[in-house]
Amino acid sequence: MEATSTLANDPWRHDDIRSTFADVRRQSELLTAPLAAEDCVVQSMPDVSPTKWHLAHTTWFFETFILGPYAPGYRSFNEAFAYLFNSYYEGAGPRHSRPQRGLLSRPTVQEVFDYRRYVDQRLQDLLDAPPSAHRAAIMERAEIGLHHEQQHQELLLMDIKHVFSRNPLLPAYRPSAGDATMTEARIPALDWMSFEGGLVEIGHAGDGFAFDNETPRHKAYLEPFRLARRPVTNLEYIDFIEDSGYRRPELWLSDGWHAVQAEGWQAPLYWQRKDDRWMQFTLHGQRPASTTEPVVHVSLYEADAFARWAGHRLPTEFEWETAAITEPVEGNFLSDETFHPRAVSASHTQLYGDIWELTQSSYGPYPGYRPLEGTLGEYNGKFMCSQNVVRGGCCLTPRGHVRTTYRNFFYPHQRWCAQGIRLAADAR
Amino acid sequence: MEATSTLANDPWRHDDIRSTFADVRRQSELLTAPLAAEDCVVQSMPDVSPTKWHLAHTTWFFETFILGPYAPGYRSFNEAFAYLFNSYYEGAGPRHSRPQRGLLSRPTVQEVFDYRRYVDQRLQDLLDAPPSAHRAAIMERAEIGLHHEQQHQELLLMDIKHVFSRNPLLPAYRPSAGDATMTEARIPALDWMSFEGGLVEIGHAGDGFAFDNETPRHKAYLEPFRLARRPVTNLEYIDFIEDSGYRRPELWLSDGWHAVQAEGWQAPLYWQRKDDRWMQFTLHGQRPASTTEPVVHVSLYEADAFARWAGHRLPTEFEWETAAITEPVEGNFLSDETFHPRAVSASHTQLYGDIWELTQSSYGPYPGYRPLEGTLGEYNGKFMCSQNVVRGGCCLTPRGHVRTTYRNFFYPHQRWCAQGIRLAADAR
Amino acid sequence: MEATSTLANDPWRHDDIRSTFADVRRQSELLTAPLAAEDCVVQSMPDVSPTKWHLAHTTWFFETFILGPYAPGYRSFNEAFAYLFNSYYEGAGPRHSRPQRGLLSRPTVQEVFDYRRYVDQRLQDLLDAPPSAHRAAIMERAEIGLHHEQQHQELLLMDIKHVFSRNPLLPAYRPSAGDATMTEARIPALDWMSFEGGLVEIGHAGDGFAFDNETPRHKAYLEPFRLARRPVTNLEYIDFIEDSGYRRPELWLSDGWHAVQAEGWQAPLYWQRKDDRWMQFTLHGQRPASTTEPVVHVSLYEADAFARWAGHRLPTEFEWETAAITEPVEGNFLSDETFHPRAVSASHTQLYGDIWELTQSSYGPYPGYRPLEGTLGEYNGKFMCSQNVVRGGCCLTPRGHVRTTYRNFFYPHQRWCAQGIRLAADAR
Amino acid sequence: MEATSTLANDPWRHDDIRSTFADVRRQSELLTAPLAAEDCVVQSMPDVSPTKWHLAHTTWFFETFILGPYAPGYRSFNEAFAYLFNSYYEGAGPRHSRPQRGLLSRPTVQEVFDYRRYVDQRLQDLLDAPPSAHRAAIMERAEIGLHHEQQHQELLLMDIKHVFSRNPLLPAYRPSAGDATMTEARIPALDWMSFEGGLVEIGHAGDGFAFDNETPRHKAYLEPFRLARRPVTNLEYIDFIEDSGYRRPELWLSDGWHAVQAEGWQAPLYWQRKDDRWMQFTLHGQRPASTTEPVVHVSLYEADAFARWAGHRLPTEFEWETAAITEPVEGNFLSDETFHPRAVSASHTQLYGDIWELTQSSYGPYPGYRPLEGTLGEYNGKFMCSQNVVRGGCCLTPRGHVRTTYRNFFYPHQRWCAQGIRLAADAR
Repeated sequence: MEATSTLANDPWRHDDIRSTFADVRRQSELLTAPLAAEDCVVQSMPDVSPTKWHLAHTTWFFETFILGPYAPGYRSFNEAFAYLFNSYYEGAGPRHSRPQRGLLSRPTVQEVFDYRRYVDQRLQDLLDAPPSAHRAAIMERAEIGLHHEQQHQELLLMDIKHVFSRNPLLPAYRPSAGDATMTEARIPALDWMSFEGGLVEIGHAGDGFAFDNETPRHKAYLEPFRLARRPVTNLEYIDFIEDSGYRRPELWLSDGWHAVQAEGWQAPLYWQRKDDRWMQFTLHGQRPASTTEPVVHVSLYEADAFARWAGHRLPTEFEWETAAITEPVEGNFLSDETFHPRAVSASHTQLYGDIWELTQSSYGPYPGYRPLEGTLGEYNGKFMCSQNVVRGGCCLTPRGHVRTTYRNFFYPHQRWCAQGIRLAADAR
Repeated sequence: MEATSTLANDPWRHDDIRSTFADVRRQSELLTAPLAAEDCVVQSMPDVSPTKWHLAHTTWFFETFILGPYAPGYRSFNEAFAYLFNSYYEGAGPRHSRPQRGLLSRPTVQEVFDYRRYVDQRLQDLLDAPPSAHRAAIMERAEIGLHHEQQHQELLLMDIKHVFSRNPLLPAYRPSAGDATMTEARIPALDWMSFEGGLVEIGHAGDGFAFDNETPRHKAYLEPFRLARRPVTNLEYIDFIEDSGYRRPELWLSDGWHAVQAEGWQAPLYWQRKDDRWMQFTLHGQRPASTTEPVVHVSLYEADAFARWAGHRLPTEFEWETAAITEPVEGNFLSDETFHPRAVSASHTQLYGDIWELTQSSYGPYPGYRPLEGTLGEYNGKFMCSQNVVRGGCCLTPRGHVRTTYRNFFYPHQRWCAQGIRLAADAR
Repeated sequence: MEATSTLANDPWRHDDIRSTFADVRRQSELLTAPLAAEDCVVQSMPDVSPTKWHLAHTTWFFETFILGPYAPGYRSFNEAFAYLFNSYYEGAGPRHSRPQRGLLSRPTVQEVFDYRRYVDQRLQDLLDAPPSAHRAAIMERAEIGLHHEQQHQELLLMDIKHVFSRNPLLPAYRPSAGDATMTEARIPALDWMSFEGGLVEIGHAGDGFAFDNETPRHKAYLEPFRLARRPVTNLEYIDFIEDSGYRRPELWLSDGWHAVQAEGWQAPLYWQRKDDRWMQFTLHGQRPASTTEPVVHVSLYEADAFARWAGHRLPTEFEWETAAITEPVEGNFLSDETFHPRAVSASHTQLYGDIWELTQSSYGPYPGYRPLEGTLGEYNGKFMCSQNVVRGGCCLTPRGHVRTTYRNFFYPHQRWCAQGIRLAADAR
Repeated sequence: MEATSTLANDPWRHDDIRSTFADVRRQSELLTAPLAAEDCVVQSMPDVSPTKWHLAHTTWFFETFILGPYAPGYRSFNEAFAYLFNSYYEGAGPRHSRPQRGLLSRPTVQEVFDYRRYVDQRLQDLLDAPPSAHRAAIMERAEIGLHHEQQHQELLLMDIKHVFSRNPLLPAYRPSAGDATMTEARIPALDWMSFEGGLVEIGHAGDGFAFDNETPRHKAYLEPFRLARRPVTNLEYIDFIEDSGYRRPELWLSDGWHAVQAEGWQAPLYWQRKDDRWMQFTLHGQRPASTTEPVVHVSLYEADAFARWAGHRLPTEFEWETAAITEPVEGNFLSDETFHPRAVSASHTQLYGDIWELTQSSYGPYPGYRPLEGTLGEYNGKFMCSQNVVRGGCCLTPRGHVRTTYRNFFYPHQRWCAQGIRLAADAR
């Protein structure tokens, strides 16, 4: 866990899978540099996985889906790891119970790093000289494995943030001397982008990498709609809170209102009232909630209630994609090392990066959807029920990982993802 | 609870709201004729309400939304009933906890009937001579109230079926001498109806009654698709079971597989293995599962797994509506007094009646959806999250209640609704 | 359930088991006279059983332990009842899950009465002409069965009180016109009876009936002690409440303090704060808590905390028995039809009747204890863990049922028994 | 966590509190020598605390009860620790929720060691020159604090054993090359010691240290009894298992039978069936259950059921004390570094050490019991409900810590203490 951060580099912009592999793998380890061994063990809720579990699971992925089937004579580092570090792949055999990941003090962090070394070496060897019969499969799976590891880089940070937030000492992942985002700029008035709708094309097509859930590209019909030019800010969200937003059932979905009461929600996750101000726990530690930053760590329920309170609604994922296709995939990503969304401004829509944007769309299959063959088909398809789509990536997403067509998804009560709100409305 | 059944009549085909009111109200009471007072008290799970609760709640609806606001000088029958019999209307004040409805031995069934008499009399008086300023509102709300009561007629039967099923004595709601559906006819081969898709119009328009969730009528784009000409039968579902359907995780949505394991599901709700045959609990008591009847009381999870096993998929609600618009709204409904789906046949598609048909569509708002004004706006809108749409009505649905555009909805784990499976497929 | 009450008679004072049998059996049914059929179905918590379950279970007891083994050619009324109405006798086979007793609408109350008729007739016949080989066993078991039924008479009232208390309508089991106990007499100062302790004899000996848990009679050594001459009153308990008794952890056992916080206890069960007074739900309905009545429906935890607050302690069961042996077994019992403890006075200690008196003694076996042979050995012995002994009977206990050596027992968190507090102290 | 073990020394045999203090404190740290930092974080169930929590809590004890009140000008090491490391002392203010101790990755193990250094230094200074007004209080509390720390030494080992047992890798705390106890000696026949009973004296008296719960010394009357000369062995317990002990409800207390079914118990904690033999997880890792060793890690329920199956019973704590007073307090304790009970033999009764011996006695106050004044009074007294007494210490108990009158206590379902079974019987 001693390492020099090279987060500022973009580990993905390579045409050589071999060096990308080295970069992405190294990047995961760099993220653990600020952590003590003890930090890497804790599971603060069933949704969260310990840091060292992420490091081991991503390694297991390469071992299970590439080395096992394709590396001649491969011997596993430790046979028990197949059980310990399988996440949810039924086709890969039985696995350790998810809510009990935090019970495992062993393997130690050092042993997990050794495991990574072991697998990395053998995978590099295989990439250097792949058996010709399996070359395509190996390359395809290596690419998936690296996108998978990038997803876990974001999860690792989401999760350690939650772990630290449950500790009364409120440790900071990355203490920050000055805090630029605290400069309270003027918030631009809520302005709208208008779209005509009609028959549109949705989903991924073409040569670049995409997950199966982004395909096939297909037509959809949209009514004319508008999309806010910037995300909802903390200031606006505080208005909602102060207007009794969390105490007015008429603003909420029925399930959302039950969650408010069962969980005692009074503000976004990581917010705490101190004296007369709202404090927010971040990867930089606890600090006042900046009025100009996008509100983050709200559930779909809260986003929906806020939108109703504001007289608007959440976008559908198709509306979002239709709007976002017009912009370059640029924004505040992990390699910017802000670890937090940046303040809104008049000059950027922030459609990409900063915050995942909640949509009202249930996560389901596109018409004609086919999951990948075999066990890897479990990657996305089996989750297409009861979750909602979020779009655009966030400040913890590795640069280059998301696309316009990229679909991420969470249950409507979940809040530990860095997700926020962008309003939509019917055309006037 | 002594009454002569007039279920064979259609209580809805009237142009006079006043006589429809009398018919629908009487119909609810007729449904209780086979029940003892003790039967009307029990709540066998939180989703279920006691029979007398249904009788009282539907009365409360008229009292709260019509008599209270519009009947000059109206005095409530019992002020405590506003608390006891409000279901989920936050705008109508606090209410008795849903899972505790079965704790109430009082009011007795007789007192609930007295309550109905009291409200019916005053509502009839109001309908006879409505104050002109409120005539339209009264008529509109009376119509909603009657559709609402029809929904509770189905719920009353769904619920008492569940209550009886939990009793080791397995009481029959309506014992049946002969059992016509047990004549095992030949099952027609699975045949398909083909549809071209393209831009279609979905949702309700025009003068007739519809719930707000069926509006506004709007365009949608569909790929070409096929829909099975008949529902899936018990025989086909038994094939799924015997092919280890409940033990093969690759067939299931992730949440569905968790449900299978947590609940120990091995067959549809109300099925029980006895010796070498599957028995099924019905409103006529327990009997062998007829091979030719549509499978019923499966969850969305089970329907989805079955469809995957069969190599097909569930329809979307738009596909279903597009297909169903071509047929008359006819079928096996409550007034047919079968209380159970009828066997499949080559001559009927059974799109309406028999079984609610599960769709893969999440229950959400149509583009431009606006709920009703005021507290009645809670009727449908606030449930638009995490549920799936079912279509077409079932054998317990009052005749005349459903429409082509009618949307009913349940959570993906729920099974006590008389819902079944119709397969869909992409066009070849 | 129409019957003339003969509660004022003492059904036990007979030398003829046959007529005692008729009296006790009739007495159970008389207790249901004020109830509607609906009241007899509800189970308001797992500890509570529905009224009709009590009526059926006591009948099952005679059927299972006498008619089955000893009545030649006996055919059961309904074979399913062996499953439905077995309470906890593992030796008598599998049984319906206790927390699901309230799911059973059938058999109806009328059918349960028919069951009672059927069994009563055959048992009377057997008692008239017992086979000589089994005469002793039949008589012994009949006697146990009648004491058992008397216990269920008290439980039936405890349970219906709880059922009614959970209904916002707060129905009264026995509405009372005037309320004699509300005449607020002067409370006698707390006075003490002193006892020398030393080697004492504890437990039952001799010819009369006793349960196995009261035997064998054995020696115990007691330090000198004092016992309060009267129970703790509502007034004194209100002082405890107002002195923040429920908010001061130092007064409580650790488990008790957890219960206070988990359950939100702020007063005894059935108490409710209205404006500036404490209301108490009774079998006569809700009414102000009389200052002069003994506090009732407190848990062992609350009794222990009160005693600590008062600077004293609870008695051991041996201290209680040593004191109570000096008094006749007289007091306010069920046949007095008060259904509630009577106010304290200077003239009566109320050691018997009114309230069960909580002791600090864990319920365990006496030295040399042997349970009854066979399945009836499960009656008492298997509960000898984690419960506390209460002594003396209460206002709902049938007259003649309790003895000086009688041991009843509840878990320390339970409150639905009519139990209260008598203070003890070490000798000065 | 690098240290040379000096477990073989007896850290308590000192007449100088100051050097005892240094020894006991060092001993706690030595116990962590085999552990990685990761091991010290995990809480495998609510009863278990993380290793570093034990190290910090024992330090907090000295800080809170001695340095805070008596060290002039004492400044706490970290004010937040008062919240984090208070266990259950309500009088010492609010505290971190017990089941969430495993959520704390910070303070790190190293920081906890720093905390220990800080407090140790200041306490040594205070012991060197105590203010004369508080000298007695300081010395008394230091003595309690050291006994307290010894209790946590045992808990630390109990807890890490449970932590490791939940890890599929089954790590060993202390791998052992040879395994002496596996030499299967002959098991001596079950022989009995006889005692006359009568009036006996129970509890602590005199000058030596004792906890308040061992006082006051008082008289009790015992019937003549017998006590087994050795503990029950694994072999005998396997006989119980193979005789369907875990499937015969008639052997069990009612609560015990519920635990068997709810928890799925089929053997003692840490036992696992592999092929045709029983494996046992120990601090040396997993190994076959030695037939000659005392059975360990059974609950009170299991011990009670075993005793009933064997035709005997468990002793009362007074019987145990009466028997144990005749023997020296010698046996297999922590400093013997076996970390496991030794095999039974004909030559030793093993009344002390090896296993805590379960008694049928509920943990309650002795007649005239008074807890310590102030917050330290919470140490023992508030737990006197629903737990059972165990006696004699075990292989993880520091030598010199237990006495004949020493009372330890656990809930009847708990199994993670190294407790076992010694049979008792009435005199013939």
